[in-house]
Amino acid sequence: MRNILIIGAGRSATSLIQYILEKSQEEDLLVTIGDISVQNARRLAGGHPNAEAYLLDIHNVHDRREAIQDSDIVISMLPARYHIEVARDCLEFGKNLVTASYVSDEMQSLHHKVESKGLTFMNEIGVDPGIDHMSAMQVIDRIRDGGGKMLMFESFTGGLVAPESDDNLWNYKFTWNPRNVVLAGQGGAAEFIQEGTYKYIPYHRLFRRTEFLEVEGYGRFEAYANRNSLKYRKIYGLEDILTLYRGTIRRVGFSKAWNIFVQLGMTDDSYIIPHSENLSYRQFVNLFLPYSPTDSVELKLRHNLKIDQDDLMWDKLLELDIFNGEKTIGIKDATPAQALQKILMDKWTLKEDDKDMIVMYHKFGYELEGKKKQIDSHMVIKGEDQTYTAMAKTVGLPVAIAALKILNGEITTPGVLRPIAKEIYEPILEELKDYGIAFDEHFADYLGYNPEGVGG
Amino acid sequence: MRNILIIGAGRSATSLIQYILEKSQEEDLLVTIGDISVQNARRLAGGHPNAEAYLLDIHNVHDRREAIQDSDIVISMLPARYHIEVARDCLEFGKNLVTASYVSDEMQSLHHKVESKGLTFMNEIGVDPGIDHMSAMQVIDRIRDGGGKMLMFESFTGGLVAPESDDNLWNYKFTWNPRNVVLAGQGGAAEFIQEGTYKYIPYHRLFRRTEFLEVEGYGRFEAYANRNSLKYRKIYGLEDILTLYRGTIRRVGFSKAWNIFVQLGMTDDSYIIPHSENLSYRQFVNLFLPYSPTDSVELKLRHNLKIDQDDLMWDKLLELDIFNGEKTIGIKDATPAQALQKILMDKWTLKEDDKDMIVMYHKFGYELEGKKKQIDSHMVIKGEDQTYTAMAKTVGLPVAIAALKILNGEITTPGVLRPIAKEIYEPILEELKDYGIAFDEHFADYLGYNPEGVGG
Repeated sequence: MRNILIIGAGRSATSLIQYILEKSQEEDLLVTIGDISVQNARRLAGGHPNAEAYLLDIHNVHDRREAIQDSDIVISMLPARYHIEVARDCLEFGKNLVTASYVSDEMQSLHHKVESKGLTFMNEIGVDPGIDHMSAMQVIDRIRDGGGKMLMFESFTGGLVAPESDDNLWNYKFTWNPRNVVLAGQGGAAEFIQEGTYKYIPYHRLFRRTEFLEVEGYGRFEAYANRNSLKYRKIYGLEDILTLYRGTIRRVGFSKAWNIFVQLGMTDDSYIIPHSENLSYRQFVNLFLPYSPTDSVELKLRHNLKIDQDDLMWDKLLELDIFNGEKTIGIKDATPAQALQKILMDKWTLKEDDKDMIVMYHKFGYELEGKKKQIDSHMVIKGEDQTYTAMAKTVGLPVAIAALKILNGEITTPGVLRPIAKEIYEPILEELKDYGIAFDEHFADYLGYNPEGVGG
Repeated sequence: MRNILIIGAGRSATSLIQYILEKSQEEDLLVTIGDISVQNARRLAGGHPNAEAYLLDIHNVHDRREAIQDSDIVISMLPARYHIEVARDCLEFGKNLVTASYVSDEMQSLHHKVESKGLTFMNEIGVDPGIDHMSAMQVIDRIRDGGGKMLMFESFTGGLVAPESDDNLWNYKFTWNPRNVVLAGQGGAAEFIQEGTYKYIPYHRLFRRTEFLEVEGYGRFEAYANRNSLKYRKIYGLEDILTLYRGTIRRVGFSKAWNIFVQLGMTDDSYIIPHSENLSYRQFVNLFLPYSPTDSVELKLRHNLKIDQDDLMWDKLLELDIFNGEKTIGIKDATPAQALQKILMDKWTLKEDDKDMIVMYHKFGYELEGKKKQIDSHMVIKGEDQTYTAMAKTVGLPVAIAALKILNGEITTPGVLRPIAKEIYEPILEELKDYGIAFDEHFADYLGYNPEGVGG
């Protein structure tokens, strides 16, 4: 039996482990699941005869190295910062590695050694990053192979609540790490390029510079710009492209209301609020408003952010109960971002039978034989329940498929990789279709952002 | 002769050196002026018989140590980050030290060694920090000595252009390091406390939460909050104070217009603009506006920031010529903040005969015998010309006076100090009056921010 070691049995590992266990008989696999919580590992092993669940603390160097040495391939579903230790052991013991995380500089620095040992360290093979890379490169390669020249690439992804479980005014619930949602967009201006012109949006304007997206059967969405669109020029070989933009999808109206928190300073994670544990939600809001004891917190907020009496944003705030003077933050030494997260989790936590939904939308603009054309492609995936979520499926299945194809010698490219080469994305995208993960494509007229070709 | 070593002969050292040279005969002083530019040092020495100007590169360890070893006291007017090397040498060779800069953590860490050697390292003895400390502590100590209890301390300082040299719509010119003006307020939320309630203002709201100040004979000013008001609770012994606020003074209307740059993202210093050297001012502005080649940069900016047709802010922008398509930034690898600084320096550089002005305003609220009272005190100092500026006078004279008093044994408190003890501030403030640096005080009714005592 071949031993697949899966390190980390959190929420994102459910569909991954399900896939591998289903294949374990025909593929002759022993599936070893190590987690810091042996309960987690056991739950996902589910008593399967080919599965072994055990306690693995990756900070215990001896245990970690032994587990890796005993394996035939390693899948790391740990938080991204822990991959590098696993990767170093894999390099030493000559094991292939698969992760769903962004390639860190440290990981990248192993490339030549990994390559010269003939090993494959496949990263960024979840959903975003992962399915976005593969689905985009498939169309980009097809356009280029047909003689087309890429003019525009725009790509949008969002983790949302499925319409049937959507029961709040924000049309949003936390489907992944809430902390990342609260901090989204921070750390520098969003950079992108439109028709050859660089554009920058500072964090405090990000949620007011959205654009709309129409997804057939699902209606209208909006997207705000990601910080790092420009790095995809190099990764996708689009150095000369005129327009490159990546964004995050929300339901229409989310960003305008979220902007209230940004404007007030509630998403700041850089300082601690004194006595935060005893602060009421109302007092928390008041920290960010001018002192004026004769005016209500409500009116101060309305006036400060110029929110009209009949603005629906107001109902969104009321729904979150942020003016409640009784409910307390209850977290010691909380930053504003942590306090806000607490308030949001009261309302935005998925219920037992809620379903999540992943939406991905690409636009490819290109020129072929003197004509400008456009392909739009999109994917919508819903979760089954709170275990086999859309997020777990779209992150875990590409990881699992890639791991098995590497183990079986179907993917052999050596090095520290992203799934952007045809050899890698073609078979994986093909198999993902069996699990309902597929893109709808349609042709559109390419208008770009400068249809009249005027300057400026 | 006693040897006073002055390291650094930049713009802030003029009045300092003038003062010491004027005293050099009666005080029997040799004034040694070392600077990385021997021209600078020579210019300030002015051929005075008691002055010696020479090239001193403080990174040349041998030269630096020799100069310090030969001196009787050291004044460091270097950029703040360089003081620590000088301080370590002073400690080793048993020399007293005076600087106008904030006490860094490294400097603070020398305190016990400095104290046990009986040395005085006097810091923060310029204008802000410096005169603010001394003038505030003088009133605070007087209130406390009289049995009063401090309720409120608010303090505002600004470096401005004098009214007779004020000829632009912003009523502002650069009187000090322009870079610090462009970056002012960045690095975290402004924190302060009002009537016992903590208040936080994020950077992107800072310039819209100003308050007004009236200075007799000079009219109306505005102030925006400094980042670090709360640290003065400990420094001034005001741990229980209800209201503590420090701010920066500008002429009314400056902040509202400056906010345009903040909102657009033009003050960001964290990334480099590609091809910045060839970018026109107009193209620079367009980086921060949505792509739309059929609309003018002007209209996009007006629409984006909702600037009305008749808003005076617009004239302030036009005065800066920021929509000029011919003028170029001309700086390679410039950040937005560096590019903006370039544009501003075209218009805000002081002319040959322009005068600068320092305004400082304190409000002290206190309770005495059951009654609430308030003292307001303020100082306005104008420069004589572009050499003996208000900034050079108010920074340099306290430094010079302190240095001489330490040299003469009139100030003997050992340790790494700020001028907050009576022994230090009383004689210095007294002597500063001879140079026209004095505060006007008047009593006012204390209203505070909660005159009706209502809650919330």
